[in-house]
Amino acid sequence: MAIPPVERSLTGAIRQKIDQKTKPTGSLGRLEDIATQIALIQQTLTPALSNPHILVFAGDHGLVAEGISAYPPEVTYQMVQNFMAGGAAINVFCKQNGLNLLICDVGVNGTFAENTQTFVKFKIRPGTRNMRFEPAMTRDECEAALDAGRTLVNGVAYRGCTIVGFGEMGIGNTSAASLLMHRLTGLPLDQCVGAGTGLDEAGVAHKTAILQEVATRYAGLTDLIDLLSAMGGLEIAALTGGMLQAAENGMVILVDGFISTAALLVAHALEPAILDYCIFCHQSDEAGHRRMLEYLNARPLLTLGMRLGEGSGAALAFPIIDSAVQMLIEMASFGQAGISQKG
Amino acid sequence: MAIPPVERSLTGAIRQKIDQKTKPTGSLGRLEDIATQIALIQQTLTPALSNPHILVFAGDHGLVAEGISAYPPEVTYQMVQNFMAGGAAINVFCKQNGLNLLICDVGVNGTFAENTQTFVKFKIRPGTRNMRFEPAMTRDECEAALDAGRTLVNGVAYRGCTIVGFGEMGIGNTSAASLLMHRLTGLPLDQCVGAGTGLDEAGVAHKTAILQEVATRYAGLTDLIDLLSAMGGLEIAALTGGMLQAAENGMVILVDGFISTAALLVAHALEPAILDYCIFCHQSDEAGHRRMLEYLNARPLLTLGMRLGEGSGAALAFPIIDSAVQMLIEMASFGQAGISQKG
Repeated sequence: MAIPPVERSLTGAIRQKIDQKTKPTGSLGRLEDIATQIALIQQTLTPALSNPHILVFAGDHGLVAEGISAYPPEVTYQMVQNFMAGGAAINVFCKQNGLNLLICDVGVNGTFAENTQTFVKFKIRPGTRNMRFEPAMTRDECEAALDAGRTLVNGVAYRGCTIVGFGEMGIGNTSAASLLMHRLTGLPLDQCVGAGTGLDEAGVAHKTAILQEVATRYAGLTDLIDLLSAMGGLEIAALTGGMLQAAENGMVILVDGFISTAALLVAHALEPAILDYCIFCHQSDEAGHRRMLEYLNARPLLTLGMRLGEGSGAALAFPIIDSAVQMLIEMASFGQAGISQKG
Repeated sequence: MAIPPVERSLTGAIRQKIDQKTKPTGSLGRLEDIATQIALIQQTLTPALSNPHILVFAGDHGLVAEGISAYPPEVTYQMVQNFMAGGAAINVFCKQNGLNLLICDVGVNGTFAENTQTFVKFKIRPGTRNMRFEPAMTRDECEAALDAGRTLVNGVAYRGCTIVGFGEMGIGNTSAASLLMHRLTGLPLDQCVGAGTGLDEAGVAHKTAILQEVATRYAGLTDLIDLLSAMGGLEIAALTGGMLQAAENGMVILVDGFISTAALLVAHALEPAILDYCIFCHQSDEAGHRRMLEYLNARPLLTLGMRLGEGSGAALAFPIIDSAVQMLIEMASFGQAGISQKG
C-alpha cells in the first residue's frame, strides 16, 4: 500500500492541548475532531492550512447520447468557459473564502485556448466513449486521467498547498458515479441512481434502465482500474488519481458531493487508509450520496440541500475547517487567560 | 405590534433571479432560501451584508449559589477578560471571518476598566438575585437590560451594520434559559434541562430539582416581562431587547445556541413576526435546543455538536450566509454566460 494510515501517537498531546483551551471540554464538537485529524495528518500540534486549493476536473460522457441527463452535453464546455470567466458558483465561493481555484480539462468535448493561471489543459480525449456499447475509456486513457490528477496535485503541493478540495464538471457524470457506487458498495442500482441535475420521475426511470444495461454488460469485471475504465469518466479518474496523490503527499483532502465521493470510493478500494486524510464536506441532495457516506462511515460537515458539484460543498466548508485549525493555534489556554477550571 | 412581517411581494422576482444563475434549478439548496430571506428583509434584489457584528452580552446569575453549574461563577468575569484580550473562541472566529465583535457587560459580578472599541459597560447590577428565593431582576432592572440590548443594536445600526449575531457569556445561564423554555414552549421541565458546561448525571438531576422549585415558585406569573424578570438573566434580557430592536430596524438576526434561542423565545412571544428576520445558525448539543428549534419551526444551518455559546455558532455560520448573498450578487446568469438551459 502506498498510503500509510495516519500515525496516531500524537493524539493524546493534541487532545490535551484542545482541552486546555478556554472553553468547556468538548464544547466545540466537530471542530475539535477536525483539528485533531489535521494535526495528526501533519504530525504537529501547530498545523497550518497553506495555499488551499480547489481543483475542478472537467470531462464529457459518451453515455449522454442515451438521454440520461437533464442538460445537453454542450453545457460541460460552456460551464468551463463560465469557470474561466469567473461566473460560476465555485468561482464566487473560492473568491470569498480565499481559496485558489484551478480548472483542469481532462476530457471536455470542445477546444480551449492556452493554459492560464487558473486553467490547465490536460485533455486525454474529448469525452468518454458510450459505455452502453464499449468501455468508457481504454485502460491507457484511464491511467492517463489518473496521472493527470496526480500531476495537478503535485503541482499545487510544490507551491506549498497542504489542503486540497476536489470538484468536477461533466454533464452525465452522476450516471458514471452511480454505476461505480453500485459496484463498489454492493447496493442495488436503484439505491444509487438519482435525478442528477434535475430529471423528472420518468427521466430517472429511463436513466436507471440504461444504467442497469451497462451494469450488466460489465458485471464480469473485477479489476478496479478495468471497472473505472469501463464505467467511470475522465474527470472521475482524475479525481481518483488526485486524491491518491494528495494522501501520499500527506495533504488534507476535502471531499465534495456525489461524484467526488464516487471517485473516492475507487481510491478507497485501492488504498483503504486514504480515509484518514479525508474531510467529508457536505452531504449532497443527490439520492445515494447519504448511502455512499454511510458506506464509508463518513459524517458530512454540512447538510445544506445542495446538489451542484464543482467542489462547491468543499469551498463552503473550508472556513469551518479553517476555524478548527485557528482554534488550535490562536485560542488562549486556561493558564494563559487565568481562568478557573471546572469545579 | 412594532415588528411587521417581512413584505413578500418581491419573492417571485428573487426566485427568478436565482433560477437564472448558472446552476441547476434549486441546486444550492439552503443557500437559495437564505438569499431569498435576506433579499426580502432588505427589499432588494441586490442585498448587502454590511459591517457585520457579533454582540456578546455577559451577566452573572444568583442561582449559581445553588450549585447548578459545572464551572465556578468567577469564570464569567474571567471569560470577559479573555474576550477583551482576544483569546476566546469567539475572538478567533470573528477575526477569521471578518466579523466585528462587541462585548457588553450588563451584569457581570466584577469591575472592568473603561469602555474600549470592543467593550461596552452597561452594567445594571453585578449579577441577578437568586431566583430560588426572589425574582432574578426587578421589572425595572429587566427593562434596563432590554434597553441595553436595544441601545447596543442601534449603535451598530448607526454605523451601517445590517446583520447582527447574538451571543452571551454567563455561568449559570442555561438554567435561566431552560426555565424560560419550559414556560414558553409548555414542554416538561426535564426536556428543557441539560448538562450546560458539563454537569454529570447527578449534577443534572440536582439542577433539575432546583429549577423545578423555581418553576413552581413563579408558576402564577403570566406577563412576559414579569416572567423574564423572575427567571431570566440580565444578558438574556439584553439579547431579547437587542433582537427586537434588530428586527424593528430591518436587520438580519443571527441566532446562536440554547441561550440565544431562549432569548428569542421571549422576543417571539412578544412579537411573532420577528422570526422573518432570523437565521438559525446552528443546533447546539445542549439537550433541549433541538426541541426549542422545533417549537419555532426553525431549521438550523449547522449541526456541529457544539455547546459553547459566545455567539460561536453565528460566527461560524456567517461565511455560508455571506456565500448565499454573494451567489445572488456575483454569479453569472445563463444569458450572461451563454449557457444552454435544461433540455
